[in-house]
Amino acid sequence: MKHKIVTFGEVLMRLSPANYRTLQQSKELEFFFGGTELNVAASLSTMGCDVKHVSTVSNDFVGESAISYIKSFGVDTSFIQKNDSPLGLYFLEVGSAIRSSRITYNRLNGSFANIIPSEINWNEILDNCNYFHWTGITPGISENAYEALKTALIEANKKGIQITADPAYRSNLWKYGKNGHEVLKELVSYSTIFIGGVNEINEILATDFSSDKAGFIEASKTLMQQIPSIKKVFDKVRIGHSATNQSTKGRAWVNETYIETNELAIENVVDRIGTGDAYAAGLIYGLIHYTDQEALDFANAACAIKHTILGDINLATANDISEIVNGNLGGRIKR
Amino acid sequence: MKHKIVTFGEVLMRLSPANYRTLQQSKELEFFFGGTELNVAASLSTMGCDVKHVSTVSNDFVGESAISYIKSFGVDTSFIQKNDSPLGLYFLEVGSAIRSSRITYNRLNGSFANIIPSEINWNEILDNCNYFHWTGITPGISENAYEALKTALIEANKKGIQITADPAYRSNLWKYGKNGHEVLKELVSYSTIFIGGVNEINEILATDFSSDKAGFIEASKTLMQQIPSIKKVFDKVRIGHSATNQSTKGRAWVNETYIETNELAIENVVDRIGTGDAYAAGLIYGLIHYTDQEALDFANAACAIKHTILGDINLATANDISEIVNGNLGGRIKR
Amino acid sequence: MKHKIVTFGEVLMRLSPANYRTLQQSKELEFFFGGTELNVAASLSTMGCDVKHVSTVSNDFVGESAISYIKSFGVDTSFIQKNDSPLGLYFLEVGSAIRSSRITYNRLNGSFANIIPSEINWNEILDNCNYFHWTGITPGISENAYEALKTALIEANKKGIQITADPAYRSNLWKYGKNGHEVLKELVSYSTIFIGGVNEINEILATDFSSDKAGFIEASKTLMQQIPSIKKVFDKVRIGHSATNQSTKGRAWVNETYIETNELAIENVVDRIGTGDAYAAGLIYGLIHYTDQEALDFANAACAIKHTILGDINLATANDISEIVNGNLGGRIKR
Amino acid sequence: MKHKIVTFGEVLMRLSPANYRTLQQSKELEFFFGGTELNVAASLSTMGCDVKHVSTVSNDFVGESAISYIKSFGVDTSFIQKNDSPLGLYFLEVGSAIRSSRITYNRLNGSFANIIPSEINWNEILDNCNYFHWTGITPGISENAYEALKTALIEANKKGIQITADPAYRSNLWKYGKNGHEVLKELVSYSTIFIGGVNEINEILATDFSSDKAGFIEASKTLMQQIPSIKKVFDKVRIGHSATNQSTKGRAWVNETYIETNELAIENVVDRIGTGDAYAAGLIYGLIHYTDQEALDFANAACAIKHTILGDINLATANDISEIVNGNLGGRIKR
Amino acid sequence: MKHKIVTFGEVLMRLSPANYRTLQQSKELEFFFGGTELNVAASLSTMGCDVKHVSTVSNDFVGESAISYIKSFGVDTSFIQKNDSPLGLYFLEVGSAIRSSRITYNRLNGSFANIIPSEINWNEILDNCNYFHWTGITPGISENAYEALKTALIEANKKGIQITADPAYRSNLWKYGKNGHEVLKELVSYSTIFIGGVNEINEILATDFSSDKAGFIEASKTLMQQIPSIKKVFDKVRIGHSATNQSTKGRAWVNETYIETNELAIENVVDRIGTGDAYAAGLIYGLIHYTDQEALDFANAACAIKHTILGDINLATANDISEIVNGNLGGRIKR
Amino acid sequence: MKHKIVTFGEVLMRLSPANYRTLQQSKELEFFFGGTELNVAASLSTMGCDVKHVSTVSNDFVGESAISYIKSFGVDTSFIQKNDSPLGLYFLEVGSAIRSSRITYNRLNGSFANIIPSEINWNEILDNCNYFHWTGITPGISENAYEALKTALIEANKKGIQITADPAYRSNLWKYGKNGHEVLKELVSYSTIFIGGVNEINEILATDFSSDKAGFIEASKTLMQQIPSIKKVFDKVRIGHSATNQSTKGRAWVNETYIETNELAIENVVDRIGTGDAYAAGLIYGLIHYTDQEALDFANAACAIKHTILGDINLATANDISEIVNGNLGGRIKR
Repeated sequence: MKHKIVTFGEVLMRLSPANYRTLQQSKELEFFFGGTELNVAASLSTMGCDVKHVSTVSNDFVGESAISYIKSFGVDTSFIQKNDSPLGLYFLEVGSAIRSSRITYNRLNGSFANIIPSEINWNEILDNCNYFHWTGITPGISENAYEALKTALIEANKKGIQITADPAYRSNLWKYGKNGHEVLKELVSYSTIFIGGVNEINEILATDFSSDKAGFIEASKTLMQQIPSIKKVFDKVRIGHSATNQSTKGRAWVNETYIETNELAIENVVDRIGTGDAYAAGLIYGLIHYTDQEALDFANAACAIKHTILGDINLATANDISEIVNGNLGGRIKR
Repeated sequence: MKHKIVTFGEVLMRLSPANYRTLQQSKELEFFFGGTELNVAASLSTMGCDVKHVSTVSNDFVGESAISYIKSFGVDTSFIQKNDSPLGLYFLEVGSAIRSSRITYNRLNGSFANIIPSEINWNEILDNCNYFHWTGITPGISENAYEALKTALIEANKKGIQITADPAYRSNLWKYGKNGHEVLKELVSYSTIFIGGVNEINEILATDFSSDKAGFIEASKTLMQQIPSIKKVFDKVRIGHSATNQSTKGRAWVNETYIETNELAIENVVDRIGTGDAYAAGLIYGLIHYTDQEALDFANAACAIKHTILGDINLATANDISEIVNGNLGGRIKR
Repeated sequence: MKHKIVTFGEVLMRLSPANYRTLQQSKELEFFFGGTELNVAASLSTMGCDVKHVSTVSNDFVGESAISYIKSFGVDTSFIQKNDSPLGLYFLEVGSAIRSSRITYNRLNGSFANIIPSEINWNEILDNCNYFHWTGITPGISENAYEALKTALIEANKKGIQITADPAYRSNLWKYGKNGHEVLKELVSYSTIFIGGVNEINEILATDFSSDKAGFIEASKTLMQQIPSIKKVFDKVRIGHSATNQSTKGRAWVNETYIETNELAIENVVDRIGTGDAYAAGLIYGLIHYTDQEALDFANAACAIKHTILGDINLATANDISEIVNGNLGGRIKR
Repeated sequence: MKHKIVTFGEVLMRLSPANYRTLQQSKELEFFFGGTELNVAASLSTMGCDVKHVSTVSNDFVGESAISYIKSFGVDTSFIQKNDSPLGLYFLEVGSAIRSSRITYNRLNGSFANIIPSEINWNEILDNCNYFHWTGITPGISENAYEALKTALIEANKKGIQITADPAYRSNLWKYGKNGHEVLKELVSYSTIFIGGVNEINEILATDFSSDKAGFIEASKTLMQQIPSIKKVFDKVRIGHSATNQSTKGRAWVNETYIETNELAIENVVDRIGTGDAYAAGLIYGLIHYTDQEALDFANAACAIKHTILGDINLATANDISEIVNGNLGGRIKR
Repeated sequence: MKHKIVTFGEVLMRLSPANYRTLQQSKELEFFFGGTELNVAASLSTMGCDVKHVSTVSNDFVGESAISYIKSFGVDTSFIQKNDSPLGLYFLEVGSAIRSSRITYNRLNGSFANIIPSEINWNEILDNCNYFHWTGITPGISENAYEALKTALIEANKKGIQITADPAYRSNLWKYGKNGHEVLKELVSYSTIFIGGVNEINEILATDFSSDKAGFIEASKTLMQQIPSIKKVFDKVRIGHSATNQSTKGRAWVNETYIETNELAIENVVDRIGTGDAYAAGLIYGLIHYTDQEALDFANAACAIKHTILGDINLATANDISEIVNGNLGGRIKR
Repeated sequence: MKHKIVTFGEVLMRLSPANYRTLQQSKELEFFFGGTELNVAASLSTMGCDVKHVSTVSNDFVGESAISYIKSFGVDTSFIQKNDSPLGLYFLEVGSAIRSSRITYNRLNGSFANIIPSEINWNEILDNCNYFHWTGITPGISENAYEALKTALIEANKKGIQITADPAYRSNLWKYGKNGHEVLKELVSYSTIFIGGVNEINEILATDFSSDKAGFIEASKTLMQQIPSIKKVFDKVRIGHSATNQSTKGRAWVNETYIETNELAIENVVDRIGTGDAYAAGLIYGLIHYTDQEALDFANAACAIKHTILGDINLATANDISEIVNGNLGGRIKR
């Protein structure tokens, strides 16, 4: 039987000029739908898992199109609600070489920010579910989003579901009054698997660990001491040589052991967005099917191949990713 | 010396699939910047007038691109401010034949809605200005936008500037608490030229005039009695055979006289958006340069040719429009 | 509870130059997935029905993309199988005015033609199903397709399911040896609702009725005499003024009564393909929800609005179609 | 054996925004190669004739691309030379409904204008040739072009070749000093078939015939009296309802008889450019294969269908055109 | 006098999303026509040779477009026949960095697979021909294709024509019953120049030589012993660092001597398809014009520059390639 | 107060296929307006300077579009005149890796070449101006252009304006009879800042300095001796590894001192055109705001980032460039 996974988070429209153009010199924008938790959902569904995504979209043809898009990945959209606020969106200008990509958001008064927590039936949604995934974006959007997430986590906890937390702190969120660091710490305390590294731990615990291996191990130990629900810590180390040329590597602290992966280089980045979400999806898939070391290798390969795929969502199949794990990096044509 | 005109209103980004596609079946969107008052500004600048547009845009690369776009028409952007809210925008699906076009907005929490009235120096802006143009959109967006407009109107009144009002009531606005009909009546009372017809008068005066010629004349007379600042009423009658096939005709009540134009048919509509703004711009240009009858003919021709031009803004020159007035409707190639 | 509908037929990729270009003068092709029965499925799902589409696609990334596309409409793809033959496809050059559109097919050795009838579990598929829809395309493709369809019809008959038949005879099919007219007659004898007119009846019965109203009534009566399982006959009359300008009208013989609709004109055809399938889907939806007259009006309006929608599939909602039925043909912008 | 036809004239690149955009609002231009005589050549080659086009193009990758384009129609390019001047080109903005299309040229210092008459071996080129076609564009471009054409006509005359003249006078040419009307008269005097009507005759003969049927007959008679080499006069009457909606009709004075065609309406014009050249090519094809009346009908149908084809060149086959002649105007899909 | 070359093989349409998109996330496909032997033909014609391509295409507008495309390169299409089967085609998803490109074919029941060997007049085609080129694709498609090729080789042998063989074995072909390895060996025995390396020799001779220099020399010697018609062996060594980054190098065994080229690196691959065909075309051109070492250098440079050119066909001129041979690799702008 | 800068030079339209296509394989061209001096103007205006560009464009919709484009950058277009010659333009094929980009021009008979020197009021234009910038392109186009420039330089000299000279010699210009080297030397003698290096000095002085550091210093000293108006020499050293991979570095001789910058590598070049102009604009901006060393660093960073921006004009803001100067080269996403 397929594993059942639930994700919860905003559905965003992404609007972006093609071919490295800036917005000022464009007349057309490519668009995709995404959102950090949806990216995880769609990747897991592509890899064959049974995934529900819970969210709220606008009650107009933009929201309808988003739902149609999500359905195309086979993700269950039954628990996506609609309201009268517009769908959140962001604009992306894609950089190259020494020019950075730029993003600007329009999301803080969108349909997800105005979600009504009481209208989500978490008991039904989480029934028979194996994994619940959340990120630090959701509680940063609005008080409503925070409360909906907290309710989900409490319910998931009751049901003994594995909870993967990707609690990165984004400074351009958290405009509604709550202290992001404290909120994230609170929400991590309901979770079982921590997807993040030294930065994220320092943000939550107000610590100051260094980002090297030793620092990572110490940070992970400290996290598990202070938040004992966390059983495993999975981190990804990104090396950005330029906007075009990136490397990625995974490391983890599991069962009192440090494990890590090879570094994978991506010399011609097609799309940097959603590579962290590809890592999270790969990790969850790996945890379901493999050992921790294999899961980490799979997550890192998923992250790496996402750099070559346009849009927010990793379209690679489990088989595509396994080939990377197995060292087929040379780009031979598959006929 | 060129005539100086000031317009005030939101700058909106329009996002639309090409070739009659729906959003659901699209991957790309064409975009334009527009906004009902900006459309008037850009058309007047294209026809050779000296125009300032006053607004507030987002402090990001979207706002920068909007300003660059507005500059490209020669419109003065010195008084466009920036704030941290996102630029308002709308999505458009273009219909054909019996299928209607559809629009959905994302504007009520945008940069223009959050304009700070006290930061606009209307005295400086309106100095030496001949015409000030406003529409019923602006006061419907937010209390701040309403207050900024009211201040402008009071200042323009003091300076004896001609004030053209296009006070259509849009039911999808007015979410911030004020009664739209009352507000529009208040603001029209600062204005000198009314661009609108029986519907608009009925909405403002809570009357029930019929839309035929007699009704239009009675409505205009009643308007001038109740709001004596109004000296002229210019209306446009649109006949929508289908999304592809439209006709347009102007009529007016000026100097106690009814005047009207021929009907102009547009058999292959390229873009219906902004045709009313093209009419308003044509009218203002006409009032500056021509008799009332000529101005009405010019306005109607401007409205008609806009149906053949993509985007929100009428790109026709005064000469292009005059050719339509002169009956050159046959589409001969100009070499 | 939603009505359950099953459709069975080939999934075709359609490849077509945009903007009236010929293939010779193109470098790019737009593509859609479609197929006459799938078009019915996707339209019914868009209108809110619960629809399964049964088919066979290629076991490659073309087949995967087709399945993703079908999922995006909410159609259940669980019973779409894969084999090693390529997906069927067709090329379309879109005409204008006096220039006809042209189509050329690549389907007779495709994945659907090579379907294995014994691998389809019709008993499971048709369980609790209310409607089964088939067309004359399927049995014309290959012997395997014919046998699979016949098995389905026998099973559906056993279960007392309503069976809608759209048995048009296409002369560019039927290359595998069977006599198309005889096969279609055989298959119609398992069906309950006949979607077709004088031409289709003449083809099946080898009769020679005229296409006027009297001829249609006589043909319908004769059909019901010879094939008594048929309870209703629904026809659509298309008037092709040019490739750009078409009219459509419905007529039916139901309960010993002739009924018909108004004629609907489409002055700027966006896409002629799939308009018959839109009619069939509208009819099935109407038969489920409305009286026969209302169903016929709804079917005709669905057919009409499809002329304005790109691709093979009607994207109009039930509400969009009802507006056409209610006479809103003028293309007003919906905000 | 195929008929051999030689055409002589400029190869122009055409640059045009798609989808009715103006240049100001565009970032991309579609391009085609064309030129009035080349259009005739490519259409005749498409219909199966053996055609050489004689010209001069730029010695760079623009000229190379033009030659590759011309080859794609099967036209013999062996006698196209190269020089160091840039290829002539024009920009086109496509109008719609009441908005006219606009053209601006960049050709008067181009590679064709700088052709070296002495480098063309007309004796070899015209050997075994049946038809030579020229237009009034060529002698208007430059003195060199005029001289090259005159030499060709003298040589063709010697060889007893049929010479079709399309001597329209274009006022935006003739900048190099010669009187266009006189030159055209001189060149027509080497020709045998006149493609043109009252306007063209009036321009050449400095007469003032009216454009009705009687005027056309008188003008044709007068032309044949003054220039006895002319044996037939073929005219086309264009009715431009709007940029979108055109009608076309042929008439001729042949063998002391007036003949004419039905009027063909094109309700959704895709491309107005090159419709006259399509007429000329259809006429030449018709004169080779048919009676004069049939040739006129064929020419008019060729002209009509060209309105539905993008670019300068008529891509219709002889069979496509014959279907129009036979009254198949309804735009049925051809499968 | 130009050298006359004949090629024989399938014309394929290639359909591919742009910008590294997957098919699933695309709405449009770019297309090109190609096919391994046609690629050689078009490249040789671009370099100035006189080339005939012999093939069979579909008798529809797809086949017509293919012929027009082939003509645009100046290749003689007189011996391309038509039949009622659809044109073969393939879909390509272009990879990047560590993501491989993917191809799926639709060709085994296409027009070329159904070629009628007896309808090809090889005696006429090969008259005065200098080179005949074939590849291992053709005999793998169908028995008919195999027989047509064998007949050609026998005829070419009789006429003493140089025969270049590129006999790569493709495992996704050879579905019609013959043993590919044996067939290729048989066909190579009619040939004079072997384009291939250790892999190809091992496949044909069922040997097991290693791919290093020594292995290549031994393999070449053995090949020549077993198939004495082969006089020269030209190999290309491809190093695939990633889909984006490739190197290429040539080596050969000629006149009992080993020769090789420098390695050329292509750091930003635009298109990997057809690089082997570019090598073959470069080699044939080189063998005609240069010494063996020069020919090998030219072939390798042709292969390298093809990586930077979109589509299946190398558009580089002989001069462009010579510049690479001469070490101009720095990408300076040519003005 | 903003610094006032005047630039003078041709406005060119650039036409280019996207995605590394050659013209032969394209149907569409992207276009931009540019021109070496305009590129400097638009970049300086983007960075916040007050810039006038002086030029002459065509009196048609191409010229109008060019002016609209220039306005979009905020550049003052009041002194751009119009005449009846076509706008100059060029075609660009963009290379990749070892394939060079190619350019071909159509400018020598364009509107700028036909500028009327006497119609430019340099006294008014240069009033209160701080910097005047010119390049070696302008005097190479036509005698008229040369004379207009010389008049400007004399007037600027009188007013004591800083004059930046970028006097590269282009061999494909200078067709009108003057000796380019002599003219450039004459015009440099009116200038104060020399933007160029050993090549440019050797061309002007007919010297033969080597391009290493010592050669550069000697050349600069010699230049200042022979042309004492020159106070500073700023050079840029470009290392072209391939069309895709370039490095750039600045060096200068100022105040009897040699200064230089770090080398900046651009691994994925988006657009090579206009990088020298970006350097010039960065330098002028730097000279206004910074020390010479800082100005050189800024100029080099401006040059480097331009390689990542499509079109002729550097769209980077001063802040974007400063980030490069500060070593932020890793392409992190800016949110």
